[in-house]
Amino acid sequence: MTKTNAGNFFEDFRLGQVITHATPRTVTSGDVALYTALYGSRFAVNSSAEFARSIGLAANGAAPVDDLLAFHVVFGKTVPDISLNAVANLGYAAGRFGALVYPGDTLTTVSTVIGLKENSNKQTGVVYVRSTGTNQKGEMVVEYVRWVMVRKRDVNAVVSEESVPELPGSVAAADLIIPAGLDLKAYDGTLAGSPHRWCDYAVGEKIDHVDGMTIEEAEHMMATRLWQNTAKVHFNQYTEGQGRFGRRLIYGGHIISLARALSFNGLGNAFKLVAFNGGRHANPTFAGDTIHAWSEVLEKIEIPGRSDVGALRLRLVATKNQPCAAFPFKAENGKDFDASVVLDLDTTVLMPR
Amino acid sequence: MTKTNAGNFFEDFRLGQVITHATPRTVTSGDVALYTALYGSRFAVNSSAEFARSIGLAANGAAPVDDLLAFHVVFGKTVPDISLNAVANLGYAAGRFGALVYPGDTLTTVSTVIGLKENSNKQTGVVYVRSTGTNQKGEMVVEYVRWVMVRKRDVNAVVSEESVPELPGSVAAADLIIPAGLDLKAYDGTLAGSPHRWCDYAVGEKIDHVDGMTIEEAEHMMATRLWQNTAKVHFNQYTEGQGRFGRRLIYGGHIISLARALSFNGLGNAFKLVAFNGGRHANPTFAGDTIHAWSEVLEKIEIPGRSDVGALRLRLVATKNQPCAAFPFKAENGKDFDASVVLDLDTTVLMPR
Amino acid sequence: MTKTNAGNFFEDFRLGQVITHATPRTVTSGDVALYTALYGSRFAVNSSAEFARSIGLAANGAAPVDDLLAFHVVFGKTVPDISLNAVANLGYAAGRFGALVYPGDTLTTVSTVIGLKENSNKQTGVVYVRSTGTNQKGEMVVEYVRWVMVRKRDVNAVVSEESVPELPGSVAAADLIIPAGLDLKAYDGTLAGSPHRWCDYAVGEKIDHVDGMTIEEAEHMMATRLWQNTAKVHFNQYTEGQGRFGRRLIYGGHIISLARALSFNGLGNAFKLVAFNGGRHANPTFAGDTIHAWSEVLEKIEIPGRSDVGALRLRLVATKNQPCAAFPFKAENGKDFDASVVLDLDTTVLMPR
Repeated sequence: MTKTNAGNFFEDFRLGQVITHATPRTVTSGDVALYTALYGSRFAVNSSAEFARSIGLAANGAAPVDDLLAFHVVFGKTVPDISLNAVANLGYAAGRFGALVYPGDTLTTVSTVIGLKENSNKQTGVVYVRSTGTNQKGEMVVEYVRWVMVRKRDVNAVVSEESVPELPGSVAAADLIIPAGLDLKAYDGTLAGSPHRWCDYAVGEKIDHVDGMTIEEAEHMMATRLWQNTAKVHFNQYTEGQGRFGRRLIYGGHIISLARALSFNGLGNAFKLVAFNGGRHANPTFAGDTIHAWSEVLEKIEIPGRSDVGALRLRLVATKNQPCAAFPFKAENGKDFDASVVLDLDTTVLMPR
Repeated sequence: MTKTNAGNFFEDFRLGQVITHATPRTVTSGDVALYTALYGSRFAVNSSAEFARSIGLAANGAAPVDDLLAFHVVFGKTVPDISLNAVANLGYAAGRFGALVYPGDTLTTVSTVIGLKENSNKQTGVVYVRSTGTNQKGEMVVEYVRWVMVRKRDVNAVVSEESVPELPGSVAAADLIIPAGLDLKAYDGTLAGSPHRWCDYAVGEKIDHVDGMTIEEAEHMMATRLWQNTAKVHFNQYTEGQGRFGRRLIYGGHIISLARALSFNGLGNAFKLVAFNGGRHANPTFAGDTIHAWSEVLEKIEIPGRSDVGALRLRLVATKNQPCAAFPFKAENGKDFDASVVLDLDTTVLMPR
Repeated sequence: MTKTNAGNFFEDFRLGQVITHATPRTVTSGDVALYTALYGSRFAVNSSAEFARSIGLAANGAAPVDDLLAFHVVFGKTVPDISLNAVANLGYAAGRFGALVYPGDTLTTVSTVIGLKENSNKQTGVVYVRSTGTNQKGEMVVEYVRWVMVRKRDVNAVVSEESVPELPGSVAAADLIIPAGLDLKAYDGTLAGSPHRWCDYAVGEKIDHVDGMTIEEAEHMMATRLWQNTAKVHFNQYTEGQGRFGRRLIYGGHIISLARALSFNGLGNAFKLVAFNGGRHANPTFAGDTIHAWSEVLEKIEIPGRSDVGALRLRLVATKNQPCAAFPFKAENGKDFDASVVLDLDTTVLMPR
């Protein structure tokens, strides 16, 4: 029997199956420094322990780590079990951030299979999983649903039970988790780098984040290894050079982090991600591509009982090799994505009022 | 109104204007590891907590971070306000290092506009700022003057008050800050990696640092993002590919750190930068360039009341794609820099006697 | 007299000479994050403080660092004294890991010259050194013998005393150091990521580790600088472009770490390296090469008095641009290495029973 992990194929999954993923991971200030070096993020709450303390979010003298750093660590663990034989990562929904993550916290991930749907060609099927990352105290730090198209090992394998889950269009306001201790009375907009607060944004407003960032092979590979994400397509030019694109594919989460960091220019006070309502990697990206991003305000959400903080539901769109002054999104047919669009992410963020 | 930061143009600055820059930054051991990975620095006082302790400079069990790491963090914060619309970074003067920076310290930067001079073409002007970085205790960690040529938004804008500051040729010996607690009695030259002490160097002596270091795009971009420096020219190949050089420009500070790290070979006991007397980025650098460096001893400075430590004023010159055995510096006309020279930095360093 | 380090030439070494190497180095969690980013290692004991605690190996709340991280730091210090004028790194033997290394530990290295043998061409000679890395408490963390071919400064120099040391074929079972406090009763194979324990492996078994990893210039240079390894061939494209290969050579230790990380897929429970019995860098590697690896079980070793842990002696082979399904090793002549083979390393690892 081979001792290497061949990953699960579509027919290996069962509805309701619970998978405890390997490789618990202690997050450190080393990860935080690499996150800054890879994405250039400037949100003050993650950059400065003093700033985090001023709004009630420091712990043991440290700032919380970027929400997406926690997401990537939690996500990376799922790859060897869920998507090693994936053809495509189809989407995200119902993503929610819980307890803040601090250097020293150890994260683990458990996934539950909540949907299975074989494709008509019998060669692949779609697997829906809800993945939950927890810290060493058992607190949820991030949870989300994603669905991936996974190859079958054997086209003749019969899949016993199928079901497609109903997924919410967005995380309800009442389900958003406001960090314990958060108090924005002393929030310093000068140090944060933006004068624009919650009340300054209007539904329908679109913001071109202006800046662009070109990606190098060494960068996306270092990031993807840092999250212990083992998807082969990101690392092996020998194999990928003979494959569909002739190149290594960039981990979609790398684009999410770049787009979020670029969004600082225009959304500098959107200091905390609280939800991924949904998302799609619209097109693949490769080393050499330059990422730009734009956002649209979809909804303004009042947080019950809070006058210091509000939430914005935002569409965050990233493109490759296409500045975003014209807000590129759909193709001329009005249905497909424009060829330049690589990410369409529906998020909810917190902002001082 | 756009919510993105367009940066300041020449006519936006006023003499005496004080700018508190955004994004306070807590320095960590993660930044230190990246600094080592990016530059390969080998000064023992920054590499080993035990060595730092042996000369009185450890705090909370840790070594102080490289002086240039502190400089880059402090400098990076000034970019969105001072040089987003810069055409050229013209020079540095009056740079001085103060309190040592340790992992856990949080740095912020404030700048004062000390000079303004419009260019005769009315399209640009030179802005002089004194920038001061402080730690969470309010202690100065590094301060320096730099001047940059900044575009005007409107060529017809009238600039009310102009003035060019007088800048010192060098930081006076009495103004150099010797770190509190420094005691070189137990300084171990074997562990430090060099037998050559202060008394072994002579004014006029030139040292070819021999080694060369080739720069990759991923390296200079990771560094520049780590310092949260947002200058667009370093990151966006889509735009720069259509620009003056057809390529991303490397942050000048990256070259300073490479040259300082290369200078270890010949100046291994120059364990601490205490001043930037002046400096120029003589020519631009790009990925693929190989940096070499040489130094010249300009002055030997006694530190009043100290027999364990002396200072050297050094010219540190870096070149691209040109070894330094012949000490390349000026062009044949005796005035311009040789085309290979990329940095001319006048520094003062401490060395055990 | 020049103040730069020209390194030692063959005739500068003496049998029995003891060399204390420069640049003590405090290891931090920043180094650990970079190690993960560079190699993608997934051994749970180094990834999670909680996991390390569960098997008795956490200290001050932290997991021990990867054994190879300690090796690289210890090795790097030897380069300026031992191999700056090396033509080739010929081999390793008698490598043994001692005290675990934790963030905060400071490492130093001392080498003893144990063999010298001039080559018949009188232009080079082979230097054998035993290098020992110790922590701030004076405990050995790793020791090994390596031999390198070093140039002579002067072909006419006479070498007084020559001797070739006898080296053991492998580290004896009784000499393997089992970490103090290790207790595998609570070892969690699910979190560790592999169901295969010591008893599941058989002598002669070969494992293709399947995955491949392509190397970029920025990655191997950042790694090699992180270990403060100063060998010129890794960094200077200006010089190397005119040299034997026309390219920068990759530090052999970079390949060892990649191969060890790849070996997780098939040897996920081989949680600790305890010996390098011997090793060869069979061929040079360059940026763009894709590394694959395979292992062969050479020996199963019982640890006296322990029912929870056993050791495996393994041959770890790495290739460039050649998947390992056919276990490439020797060339058709049965003597030389196959042209694709870049590493042949004989190691001993610990594994839960």
